Amino acid sequence: MSEYIEHDKSGITVGIVAKQYHTFAEPPDEMVLESGARIGPVTIAYETCGCLNASKTNAVLILHALSGDSHVAGYYDRNDPKPGWWDIMVGPGKGIDTDKYFVVCSNILGSCMGSTGPCSINPKTSLPYGIDFPLVTIPDMVKAQKALIDHLGISRILAVIGGSIGGMQVLEWSLRYPEMVASAIPLATTTRHSALAIAFNEVSRQAIMSDPNWRNGHYYSGLKPNLGLAIARMIGHITYLSDEAMRHKFGRRLQPRADFSFNFDAAFEVENYLRHQGIKFVERFDANSFLYITKAADYYDIGNQYGSGSTAEAFSKAQAKFLVISFTSDWLYPTYQSSEMVKAMKKNGLDVSFCEIEAEWGHDAFLLPNERLTELIRAFLKRVYSEI
Amino acid sequence: MSEYIEHDKSGITVGIVAKQYHTFAEPPDEMVLESGARIGPVTIAYETCGCLNASKTNAVLILHALSGDSHVAGYYDRNDPKPGWWDIMVGPGKGIDTDKYFVVCSNILGSCMGSTGPCSINPKTSLPYGIDFPLVTIPDMVKAQKALIDHLGISRILAVIGGSIGGMQVLEWSLRYPEMVASAIPLATTTRHSALAIAFNEVSRQAIMSDPNWRNGHYYSGLKPNLGLAIARMIGHITYLSDEAMRHKFGRRLQPRADFSFNFDAAFEVENYLRHQGIKFVERFDANSFLYITKAADYYDIGNQYGSGSTAEAFSKAQAKFLVISFTSDWLYPTYQSSEMVKAMKKNGLDVSFCEIEAEWGHDAFLLPNERLTELIRAFLKRVYSEI
Repeated sequence: MSEYIEHDKSGITVGIVAKQYHTFAEPPDEMVLESGARIGPVTIAYETCGCLNASKTNAVLILHALSGDSHVAGYYDRNDPKPGWWDIMVGPGKGIDTDKYFVVCSNILGSCMGSTGPCSINPKTSLPYGIDFPLVTIPDMVKAQKALIDHLGISRILAVIGGSIGGMQVLEWSLRYPEMVASAIPLATTTRHSALAIAFNEVSRQAIMSDPNWRNGHYYSGLKPNLGLAIARMIGHITYLSDEAMRHKFGRRLQPRADFSFNFDAAFEVENYLRHQGIKFVERFDANSFLYITKAADYYDIGNQYGSGSTAEAFSKAQAKFLVISFTSDWLYPTYQSSEMVKAMKKNGLDVSFCEIEAEWGHDAFLLPNERLTELIRAFLKRVYSEI
Repeated sequence: MSEYIEHDKSGITVGIVAKQYHTFAEPPDEMVLESGARIGPVTIAYETCGCLNASKTNAVLILHALSGDSHVAGYYDRNDPKPGWWDIMVGPGKGIDTDKYFVVCSNILGSCMGSTGPCSINPKTSLPYGIDFPLVTIPDMVKAQKALIDHLGISRILAVIGGSIGGMQVLEWSLRYPEMVASAIPLATTTRHSALAIAFNEVSRQAIMSDPNWRNGHYYSGLKPNLGLAIARMIGHITYLSDEAMRHKFGRRLQPRADFSFNFDAAFEVENYLRHQGIKFVERFDANSFLYITKAADYYDIGNQYGSGSTAEAFSKAQAKFLVISFTSDWLYPTYQSSEMVKAMKKNGLDVSFCEIEAEWGHDAFLLPNERLTELIRAFLKRVYSEI
């Protein structure tokens, strides 16, 4: 699956990786979603690195956030300019050490990065699903991942790890398949979205759905709602940073030019940064997937799902050892939400480690190089691996 | 100007008020803006309540925020369903007591509520200015207010009061016309926008300018960029509230219906609230004015304007007594920014009172009923009036 090479750009790396696909739920045996809708066939794109040991006890499942994909580490070929999205954490000798662990990263159901989603072909019409794609939930995403893990012949996962919406999937794994999850590392996440998080997602969705090119979700044969999606991404980037992070990254620095231009061009660096992020995003992401995945995140509520409204009751189903990590400047999923989660876990006598990492980079901190984060994950994995 | 009546809806009120207009800078004596552009004639809409005393020492100038107007208190007629935007603070016996003080509230230059702005007729073309309206700055707005105050025959203002962008104008008044300002009350404001505040404004502007109906700002003869403006307003409303405020106001409560609908309708109350705010706003506000006023706020930087980059140096020009107020949950202009402002004032030996008010309602707190705020303003005005 992967080849160890020294890559001149990033030093140590897992090397060349390839995107793989697992297809299941072929009609008439479609997957039944939480909404009651049926969907099939379902394809899940995934990548692996490291080697599965003979006893199949060293599998680490990494779950990505909103706009991520299965490409967690390494390069697709030797000319690939950029490694996977968590290459700083996943590789030989790294925090998630591919010399020791077999890493699986699966693209989520509803995404546009190889797994079945709204831009996939609807077998009933031979056209892209568009908005006819059924609404999928975090539990639906995890059920699809379970099909992949079964396919890989893994009956117990050493650790399920993910940040943000990936962290919600981690929690869902620990409650839906408790006997399959030896340990779980939810990073920068929450058991349910706050009104603030829902509000940001809703405005982002409205920006997409207000774009005339969205055409009620059926835009695949024509112009795409790129302007709306760019706005949505700009809003996202504000929430991924923090007041402090923006102050340090941009402050009030102007774009290279002598003075204020007295027009509506980007005058400040932060304006230019956001515009650039918006434009870059539309090249790689599907607007409908943005709608579906944010809605899934908004709907998710562990207490409702498993505990008749009580988060503490929900965690009575969990068996995993937990490492919960939050970041001081994350205002999308602030530490108080992780604290509540940890409290609910402890009420059930679970083995929980909790750390709030001092970091100025806001919600994005979990994706950035952080020695503390790396060492916490490394040590936790070492311990749980020694205890199985 | 106003008539004291007991209004059945709100109890004590200043009664019936009327919008008035002052026009100046008739060509060829146009107003010269900071950008160097010339504009004229300039009309400023304003309202007054209370009576100017014989010595003209009891004038209080109130300056509104982004989407406000001159209608600060009272009713336009007896069937008017809603009083002015700060009726809770301005009236007989209220925090700003119209039995004692003569209140002037002026609509800002660049707005769409009666003052000259992008939707006004350009005398050169006999069509609305649209984007040909020159960029105006906070100092330009204050210069236009000065023309109004001169017109009213007031040579010294007892207190200049305003929140948010209105607070920026308060600061500008205290530095541009120090001898005219006996006291100044900047509320929930800042000496310059943070990168975060600029970022929110920029995304809002992009939402407007991405709306195909914006048509480069020349939309007055056709469809208006209502969808873009609604998105901008929704973003604004998120920043006016706070995580805590949203939790209390909405939490994760669903719209009245049995369960999740598994579609993209508004499921949560917070979604419905934001959509409603967006729709309501487009009925009363002009998208171009939103662009111009937010840009003016982003540009403003007291240190650059008056202190060669130093806020402390800038305040060496001030003579007013200051009452600075911030709110604990305001994350658009957090308390640390008011603290820095106060520090800069104190460095210059100015008479400064500073209070951070415990309030859960975010940036919007300055507009909401708050006994602490009312009493602070009442006591401060009493003192400064006794000291002139």
